[in-house]
Amino acid sequence: MILVNGVRSDSVAVTDRGLTYGDGIFRTLVSKKGQPRWWPWHYRKLEHDCAALAIPCPAAAVLAQEMALAASRSGDEIVKIIVTRGSGTRGYAPPQPPSPTRIVMTAPPPEYPEVFSRSGVKVFKCRTRLTSQPRLAGVKHLNRLENVLARAEWSDPDVPEGLMLDEANNIIGGTMTNLFIVEDGKLLTPELTRCGVAGVTRERVMDAARKHGVACREEPITEARLSEAQEALLVNSVIGVWQIRECAGRSWTAGAHAGRVREWINEEAG
Amino acid sequence: MILVNGVRSDSVAVTDRGLTYGDGIFRTLVSKKGQPRWWPWHYRKLEHDCAALAIPCPAAAVLAQEMALAASRSGDEIVKIIVTRGSGTRGYAPPQPPSPTRIVMTAPPPEYPEVFSRSGVKVFKCRTRLTSQPRLAGVKHLNRLENVLARAEWSDPDVPEGLMLDEANNIIGGTMTNLFIVEDGKLLTPELTRCGVAGVTRERVMDAARKHGVACREEPITEARLSEAQEALLVNSVIGVWQIRECAGRSWTAGAHAGRVREWINEEAG
Repeated sequence: MILVNGVRSDSVAVTDRGLTYGDGIFRTLVSKKGQPRWWPWHYRKLEHDCAALAIPCPAAAVLAQEMALAASRSGDEIVKIIVTRGSGTRGYAPPQPPSPTRIVMTAPPPEYPEVFSRSGVKVFKCRTRLTSQPRLAGVKHLNRLENVLARAEWSDPDVPEGLMLDEANNIIGGTMTNLFIVEDGKLLTPELTRCGVAGVTRERVMDAARKHGVACREEPITEARLSEAQEALLVNSVIGVWQIRECAGRSWTAGAHAGRVREWINEEAG
Repeated sequence: MILVNGVRSDSVAVTDRGLTYGDGIFRTLVSKKGQPRWWPWHYRKLEHDCAALAIPCPAAAVLAQEMALAASRSGDEIVKIIVTRGSGTRGYAPPQPPSPTRIVMTAPPPEYPEVFSRSGVKVFKCRTRLTSQPRLAGVKHLNRLENVLARAEWSDPDVPEGLMLDEANNIIGGTMTNLFIVEDGKLLTPELTRCGVAGVTRERVMDAARKHGVACREEPITEARLSEAQEALLVNSVIGVWQIRECAGRSWTAGAHAGRVREWINEEAG
């Protein structure tokens, strides 16, 4: 089901700035039996990302009500929330005041082979680089051509994800996931001060690591550093955790951290 | 009037990748009495930009027919053409084959004070930088958040444009225009190999300069170089030519080149 500003609809105005300029943000999360998982985390991120673009954020209660209406009460679904600056006059200048467009849509979960979670995944190394834009770094905005170009670089269905680097040759993450590596038993995740998306699951892993007394830091991660890591993990709200089994000629055997991190992010009700 | 895939409509699917990822390109041109000006130039650019994103380009004849249907036969109108990769399955991977969405829409021309063309304009210097992405440089794609952020930096209605720099402190152009400067009687325009939009009017000015035996080169243009220039001009398909009268503390008196360049781009029928 798709709700646009609370009304069942499958379309938006051609003049919506989400279409004309990618002037908006989005979230993807899992709903279990009609309950959006880790909603407070997702809403905080939605508020943060709207603020980064100076788009008024829809009220949490409004979105919760619309998710309750759209999502199935049985089984799992993916919920996507898009908030755009809405329609406006021609030209880049943001309309004052804006009338944001709010989209809540549900879809069946993607069918990834169970082996991805159990035994890890083979990962592609993308040539398309992420560019540095501090004003948009970390924000899950609708300008995603770099991810599209990167994802178009490979089509092997057994390779579900690709790693993207910035121009300084640091690994920033996957096209749709955040990265953690394990070094001397400590967790490290790429700094996202210049590009990349700071996802909710990444935040939750960092938070859980603190609670469990495991060191977890944001640092630049080069290819050499990834190659020498004990383990490498990809995370997002839909897949949870995948260990990287193979990337750029390096392979890893199953480690203990993927399961541990998976337990952390599943132990909290939400 | 708005035509979506040839049919009168004012909306697109929520699942259109133009909305979800900014996965598409656009053109803005002037229609005079129903005739799109310099259409062959615009169509070549449309083909080029579609190719840059591997989106099949709509046939010129189809677009021409739709513009004829949408545009008024009396007076001037602005025509905007958007081509997206269309709807697809969830996720960044481009659908194979894609079913592009084609939008042709018309609007009244913006009402800029006539003094802008006659006496020049005051121009803002934006803090938002354009990031370097060689794979997208020059392409007028739908990922335009940097332009939106830059245009939101000022609101003085007497200042119709702002200049944007790249991370290397080179001026790339305006938020919606291309820049030319005059140095020793020669025309220079910023190199657009790493960012920026290579507009049709910019191409036409470069072409006309060649035909008139005036030197015109693409070079890096720093702020110091702009400040020392004899004249500075902003161009696009809608405004034609505006001389910069004032920018970042420097002011210019009316020069001969704005009028000359305006004559060049108006002399060709099209």
